[in-house]
Amino acid sequence: MKFDFSFRFQEVPVNLSAKAQRCKASPIRKYYPYQVECLKRGIKMYHLNIGQPDIATPEAYFDVIHSFDKPVLEYAPSPGIPKLIEATKDYYAGFGISLTSDDILITTGGSEALSLALACILDDGDEVIVPEPFYPNYTTFVNVASGHICPLPTYMEDGYNYASREQIVPLINKRTRAILVTNPGNPTGSVLTKEEMRTLADIAKEYDLFLISDEVYREFIYDDGVQISSMAEFTDIAQNVVIIDSVSKRFSACGARIGALITRNREFQANVIKLLQARLSVATIDQLASAALYSVDPTYFEAVRIEYKARRDLIQARLSSMPGVSCVVPQGAFYLMAKLPVKNADDFQTWLLTDFSHNNETIMFAPGSGFYATPGMGLNEARFAYVLNCADIARAMDLLETALAQYRKVEQS
Amino acid sequence: MKFDFSFRFQEVPVNLSAKAQRCKASPIRKYYPYQVECLKRGIKMYHLNIGQPDIATPEAYFDVIHSFDKPVLEYAPSPGIPKLIEATKDYYAGFGISLTSDDILITTGGSEALSLALACILDDGDEVIVPEPFYPNYTTFVNVASGHICPLPTYMEDGYNYASREQIVPLINKRTRAILVTNPGNPTGSVLTKEEMRTLADIAKEYDLFLISDEVYREFIYDDGVQISSMAEFTDIAQNVVIIDSVSKRFSACGARIGALITRNREFQANVIKLLQARLSVATIDQLASAALYSVDPTYFEAVRIEYKARRDLIQARLSSMPGVSCVVPQGAFYLMAKLPVKNADDFQTWLLTDFSHNNETIMFAPGSGFYATPGMGLNEARFAYVLNCADIARAMDLLETALAQYRKVEQS
Repeated sequence: MKFDFSFRFQEVPVNLSAKAQRCKASPIRKYYPYQVECLKRGIKMYHLNIGQPDIATPEAYFDVIHSFDKPVLEYAPSPGIPKLIEATKDYYAGFGISLTSDDILITTGGSEALSLALACILDDGDEVIVPEPFYPNYTTFVNVASGHICPLPTYMEDGYNYASREQIVPLINKRTRAILVTNPGNPTGSVLTKEEMRTLADIAKEYDLFLISDEVYREFIYDDGVQISSMAEFTDIAQNVVIIDSVSKRFSACGARIGALITRNREFQANVIKLLQARLSVATIDQLASAALYSVDPTYFEAVRIEYKARRDLIQARLSSMPGVSCVVPQGAFYLMAKLPVKNADDFQTWLLTDFSHNNETIMFAPGSGFYATPGMGLNEARFAYVLNCADIARAMDLLETALAQYRKVEQS
Repeated sequence: MKFDFSFRFQEVPVNLSAKAQRCKASPIRKYYPYQVECLKRGIKMYHLNIGQPDIATPEAYFDVIHSFDKPVLEYAPSPGIPKLIEATKDYYAGFGISLTSDDILITTGGSEALSLALACILDDGDEVIVPEPFYPNYTTFVNVASGHICPLPTYMEDGYNYASREQIVPLINKRTRAILVTNPGNPTGSVLTKEEMRTLADIAKEYDLFLISDEVYREFIYDDGVQISSMAEFTDIAQNVVIIDSVSKRFSACGARIGALITRNREFQANVIKLLQARLSVATIDQLASAALYSVDPTYFEAVRIEYKARRDLIQARLSSMPGVSCVVPQGAFYLMAKLPVKNADDFQTWLLTDFSHNNETIMFAPGSGFYATPGMGLNEARFAYVLNCADIARAMDLLETALAQYRKVEQS
């Protein structure tokens, strides 16, 4: 028996997939090697680059961890541990949204929720409309699902507004499968009004699109009188809405890796569950501990909100006062996007880690270009995560101001 | 401004992806609703259907959990916590395999390791050769990566042998990207000889294929004198080899969801890391606790092996003695594939949950058809996971024997 292997005459190395090669290193995490070098040199970094809050995780989490006493650490049910599903359901009921237990699927962070949702929506070449600038990992998740992001440009000058028919409808084509929004927004901090949410819902309904709403920053809104909300409110588009949720930011429990995918679309649920079964389960103890997080007193959120609002006001005031820096007041989440007086914020960040220090300290932010799909956009922008206390933010801003003054000369030389 | 939306005149509901719809519900977990009903009726089930060991998780794991005292549960580094990476490296060194820290990427279970590996290897329509019967979740992982499984048939009569040029080479074509094996095998329990491993390595090298070796059952081998091993031994094919690993079975810590993707291929690593960064990190406390697992005394494995060997011998002897049941002695893992005297093992399992009980007890196995990609194969087969103690296995076998006798009449009626 002979076979034709003439095709092997071409030099074929072990091939990596095109879709993985299209992905980029995280603009937030790609400086890790420089950080390691900084630490070796004894330099302290103020981390405004990553959404890792410094707020203590509620004790309720650790109480469960500390008292876990089963002899065998078993798999959990694939869709999640009932206790956590019920706690999530009650939490939603608390702001007026009625879900059934089946509507809530527990995932390994909001990241897995989004990855699985996209895998169930996208085939090769399908498109997702995403307001730009956006959370850079969306690009990777969409790429891995063989899809493409269709960026919906927004501008600081318009307050990063995007929720209008005029902006969205022209981007819809035969391959469009979903609109993906982050609300409150990362990196812009913009928060949708009820009217804007309704506009998005109407567009999704009219054009038969999934409306994927990443609401992991739901509690982080700073304007008085604004109620927390969710796209899940619009029950008339129950077939279209997919909510991405997580305990990471809500309870400062990022390392738990507990998220949720919420949808009332039964067919969608059935498909997601097949993927949940394949990956078996989410970490058992973290699920049990996360269920306990939902028992914290609502005053917890109030205290956290007051703290973050003070930080936002401070960082916004400091940045606005620096020569050549511009930004708008973010209404939610804990990020602020600013334009810096530099040609390339990536180069500036590298320089901050390799060449700059003041009293053995430096600062990290997330360079803006990584938040855009459109080439050439965001080069002079940076995202600041105000996840440090006010004293540290003040010091970080001092460092930034000093560094910008020095860097101007470096750029000119 | 007007746009052409005539394409919307076709009735287009919100579309789910073809790739997700190609996936099937897990044959191991799809009986969950029936189980719930059984529990309500007060019926005890002997779970031989799922690889959930009953062996106690080493105390070292819980010691770390119980003493965790950081106030903020932070993200871990995307490639894994150094302490766990070093522990994994030392464990491999312990049986003669030299790895660098960069070669080890920590994942959320072996499941995530395999998903990410496939995402970095497969594009739409690419193929993976997998010996059949195989772990059913492979189908879902390959589908989600937009690929297809090319089944490599194996037969009980040949001891499930597959590692020969004659069997594999004819299946290789232009779209073939990888060979995926489970060693020790699930569901067959077959263990590759050194010569067979070398044959697979040579084929991968010659045809520029990735050789993905799922070795999560590495310690579970029962023939005296057989040393534990890994495809990572073949450093001449370092560019081709990807090891899937996990603490789940090794330390009876399935609920930790800690796995690893191991490869010396730098370009492959770089692509996987982009995906690791996108999903941020693996659960922090579970990683720290899993690092401690690697400190358990090697006698732990010896004791576990003795226990499983006794179980294997018992279940194999009992099954072989039942009229119409046939099986071979599995050499490793903790599964046994048997042919049952029924037309359809799926129907039989459903009947066991809905119609059968003896002294308020019944038994669960994993019906065989789900382990095959080839239609019509495995209909009268079943996988038994011998993860219960000998007394429970004996009782489960009593139940099976009783049930088979009764079911024969049901099938004939």
